[in-house]
Amino acid sequence: MRGFFYASYALPAFYGGGLSYNPDMVDTQFIIKARWVIPMDADQTLLEQHAILVDGGQIRAIVPKTEIPEWAADWAVVDCSQHAVIPGLINLHAHSSMNLLKGYADDYALMPWLNEHIWPAEQRWVSKSFVHDGSLLACAEMLSGGVTTFNDMYFFPQATIEAVKRAGMRVQVGLVITEFPTNYAATASDYIRLGTDVRDQYKSDEHISFAFAPHAPYTVSNQTFEYIATLAEQLNLGIHTHLHETQAEIQQSLEQFGVRPLQRLLALGVIGPNTVLAHGVHLETNELETLSIQGAHIAHCPCSNLKLASGVAPVAAALRAGVNVGLGTDGAASNNRIDLWQEIRTAALLAKVADQNAASLPAYQALEMATIRAARALGLQEKVGSITVGKQADLVAVKLDDLNSLPCFDPISHLVYVASREQVTQTWVNGQLCYQRTPDGQMQFAQMEVEELRSIALQWQLKMQS
Amino acid sequence: MRGFFYASYALPAFYGGGLSYNPDMVDTQFIIKARWVIPMDADQTLLEQHAILVDGGQIRAIVPKTEIPEWAADWAVVDCSQHAVIPGLINLHAHSSMNLLKGYADDYALMPWLNEHIWPAEQRWVSKSFVHDGSLLACAEMLSGGVTTFNDMYFFPQATIEAVKRAGMRVQVGLVITEFPTNYAATASDYIRLGTDVRDQYKSDEHISFAFAPHAPYTVSNQTFEYIATLAEQLNLGIHTHLHETQAEIQQSLEQFGVRPLQRLLALGVIGPNTVLAHGVHLETNELETLSIQGAHIAHCPCSNLKLASGVAPVAAALRAGVNVGLGTDGAASNNRIDLWQEIRTAALLAKVADQNAASLPAYQALEMATIRAARALGLQEKVGSITVGKQADLVAVKLDDLNSLPCFDPISHLVYVASREQVTQTWVNGQLCYQRTPDGQMQFAQMEVEELRSIALQWQLKMQS
Repeated sequence: MRGFFYASYALPAFYGGGLSYNPDMVDTQFIIKARWVIPMDADQTLLEQHAILVDGGQIRAIVPKTEIPEWAADWAVVDCSQHAVIPGLINLHAHSSMNLLKGYADDYALMPWLNEHIWPAEQRWVSKSFVHDGSLLACAEMLSGGVTTFNDMYFFPQATIEAVKRAGMRVQVGLVITEFPTNYAATASDYIRLGTDVRDQYKSDEHISFAFAPHAPYTVSNQTFEYIATLAEQLNLGIHTHLHETQAEIQQSLEQFGVRPLQRLLALGVIGPNTVLAHGVHLETNELETLSIQGAHIAHCPCSNLKLASGVAPVAAALRAGVNVGLGTDGAASNNRIDLWQEIRTAALLAKVADQNAASLPAYQALEMATIRAARALGLQEKVGSITVGKQADLVAVKLDDLNSLPCFDPISHLVYVASREQVTQTWVNGQLCYQRTPDGQMQFAQMEVEELRSIALQWQLKMQS
Repeated sequence: MRGFFYASYALPAFYGGGLSYNPDMVDTQFIIKARWVIPMDADQTLLEQHAILVDGGQIRAIVPKTEIPEWAADWAVVDCSQHAVIPGLINLHAHSSMNLLKGYADDYALMPWLNEHIWPAEQRWVSKSFVHDGSLLACAEMLSGGVTTFNDMYFFPQATIEAVKRAGMRVQVGLVITEFPTNYAATASDYIRLGTDVRDQYKSDEHISFAFAPHAPYTVSNQTFEYIATLAEQLNLGIHTHLHETQAEIQQSLEQFGVRPLQRLLALGVIGPNTVLAHGVHLETNELETLSIQGAHIAHCPCSNLKLASGVAPVAAALRAGVNVGLGTDGAASNNRIDLWQEIRTAALLAKVADQNAASLPAYQALEMATIRAARALGLQEKVGSITVGKQADLVAVKLDDLNSLPCFDPISHLVYVASREQVTQTWVNGQLCYQRTPDGQMQFAQMEVEELRSIALQWQLKMQS
C-alpha cells in the first residue's frame, strides 16, 4: 500500500491532519528511483538511473536502478524517472516570520525603508502569533521550493520553532540579541535570558539547533558581543550575525570604533568556525584571508543585497580565498521570494560579472553553496547537505522534463540556470515526505492544509491594511 | 457555450489541431473580469474589480465589473477574479531558435564559449529546420510566460516566421546581416537579398514586422552599415543590432576605427528612432545623451549580460537621460530561461545596485520596460503595449493568489518581485487565446501540442548529443 501511495503521489492518510508525525513514518522504508542522483560529493559525481534506499529516515544505500538489493525488494518505490534528486536545500540566512511583510514596502532607500516602513510595522505587529504565522508561511514556501533546513534570526524564536515542527523541517534558531527594546525583550540580557530558556526547552530535539544571533555590529555593544562569545563557547552554540552588509555600516564603525566591523568583532572573539556572517558584501582581500584563517562562514544573499542596493559580494574571490560560503534569502521584506533557486541562479550570474569572468562560480559550485557548503556552515555536514549513505534523508526531487526545460544536455546546468521552484515535486526531511506537488499541480504538505495557510496570510493582510 | 469554455479554461474544440486560426476566433466577443487590471498607462492607473471587453481582437471597453454594458450582456466571460491582467509582454531582444542550444555550454568566458562551443554548434546544426523547431519551442516558452511579441534576430528568418504564425504571436523579424559566410548566406549582399525576399513575402501580415539586423559592429563593415541605413529608410524598416555589449567590442573598435562603436554607427546613419540597440552595457553619460537625442532604443538583457560577464548596463541613468529602454532575454544559449519575468525582476534588482539607490527602477518602471516601452521601441505603441480601448487585445492573466504570493499588499510589487511565469494562466494575442495553464497545471497551446513540442526538443537533443 505504501508503494501505491508514493507512486501515485498521494500522501498516506495518516499524514493528514495531526500536529505531530506518526512515528511509523520515520521507519518507512522506500526507494527513490531517479533519472539522475546528484549527491553533491567532493568528486562532483553525477549518477544516472540510480536509486536511493531510505530506511528509518536515513540513506541506507545508493545503487543503480537495476541493482536493487534483495532485502529491499518489497520496499515502496517512488518514481522519479524524469527527475534529478538532490540533497535538501539549506537557506543560510532567513527571517522567516517576515513572510507576512512580503511586498509591504519596496523601492525605498535603506534608511527610509527601515525607519518609515519596516520598523514601525514590526513595532505595531510583531508578536508571538505574528512570528508563528509568518514562520509557518515561510516554512510552506521553503518546503515547496525544496528547502529542508534554514538558519533563522528573529524575535519570539519559540513561535518559529512551533511552526518548524509542524512543517517538519530542520532549523538553526538564532536567539536574537540587540541593545534595543522591542515587543519581545527590553535589554540585551533579557534577550539572552529568553533565548537560553528556549534553547533549554528544545535542546534535545534532533531537528533543532541553536545559535546566538547578536543582530549586527551597529545594534550590539562590545560588552554584549564579548559575553555572547563566551556563552557560545561554553554552551557549544553557533553565532549568527549580520556583517559588512552596507558601506554605511562600515563607515559608522570607523567613526564610532576606529575600525571596520570585522576587525572589531574579531577582537571581541566573535569570529570563528561556528560563526555565520550574513551578507558579507563589502570585504577586502585581507578580510577574506582573515575569514579563511578563522574558518568563519558567509551567508551570501544576492537578491536582498541587490534590492536594498547594498552591493555585490565578492563571492568568487571569497571561495578562492578558502572561505566557506552558503546562500540565504534574507527576509521576505527585502527579497520578496523565499526561493533558494533564485538565489542559486542569481549568485551564479552575479559572481561572473563581479569577477569579470564568465567561468566564475560555475553551476556545480552554486549548487554546493545551497547544499553541502551551507551544511558545513551550520556544523551539520555529517548529518545533511549531501546524498551519502548514513546521512539523514533530506532529499528533493526536481522534475526536469517540462517543456521549458527541454532540451536538457546537463541536469546540473538546468538546475542552476533553468529550473523554477515549481519543478520541485517532492521534499523529504529525515525520510518524511513533508511536501509534494501533485500531478495536477497542487501543493500538498504533510501537516499543513494549503487553505488554512492561505486564510492565515489573508487575515494578516486584512489586519495590516486596516 | 463560449462562456463555458472560457470559464472552465477548456480551449474550444476547433482550436485543436489545425495550422491556421479559425477566423471565427478573431471575431469572438468576450469579457475578462479581473481582480486587477493594470493598463500600463502614463498615469500608472491600477483598476480594481474591472472588466476588459474584447471584440474582434480589439479592446472595446474597460469598465467596472459591475457595470457591464447591456450590449455585452451575453458575451462569454473569463473569470480572472484572483488575477492581475496586464498587457502582453514584449521580448525586445531574442534569438528564438537558439532554444535548441539551451544549456549546451555554460560557464565559459565569452571567446572560448563562442569559438569552441556556440559557433561550431551553429556551423554544424543550423538549418531551416533547426530554426523552425527552435523558434517553435521558444514561442511556446514565451507564450507560457506571457510574452506576446518578440524582436528576433537569426538566420533563416522565414523558418522563424512559420513557427510564429503557428504559435499565433507577433514578431519583429530581424533580417540578419554579417560579412561572414554561414549555412544561411555567403556575403552581406546575399543576407540582404534573402532578407528582403522574406520581407516581401510577408509584408502584408499584420502580426509581422521587419527590421534589418546587421549583427554587430564587429561583424559588419562600414559600407554594409551605410547601405542598410539607406535601405531601412527607403523601406521604412527598423534596425536591430548589438551595441556596446562588452568592453572588448569597444576596445576593438577603438583600435580598428579610432572611435567607439556608437560614434561609428552614428556617423554611418544607423542610429535613429527606428533603431533598437541590444545590450548597451557600456555607455557613458554623453553616449546616453546621444541616444536620447537620436531617439534610439535600448534592449536591456540583464541575465545574459551577467552570465557572459559582459557587465551591468546603466539602465536607471539611461531612463533619466530620456532614453527608451525595453527588456530582452537574448538567446537561450546565454540565459537559459526565455522568461521575461526573470528579466523584469533582475532588471529592477540590478539597477538599484548599479545606481547605488534602492529607489531606482521601481516596480512599475520595470513593468513598463516589458510592455509599453518595448512597444515604443518597435514602433508598435499605437497597436499594443498597454490595455487601451482601440488597441489590439494582447493580454496576459497572472494569478496572484497562490500561497507563495500571499499576503499581497500591492499587485504591481508582486508582479515584479514575486511572480513566476508559472502564474500566467492565459495569454491572448489579438484577442485569441494562444496559451493557457489548465486548472490541473498543464500547459495548453491553441495550435501546438505539448507532446509534439517535447518530442521535437528530444529529437534535437539526441541528434546533438550523438
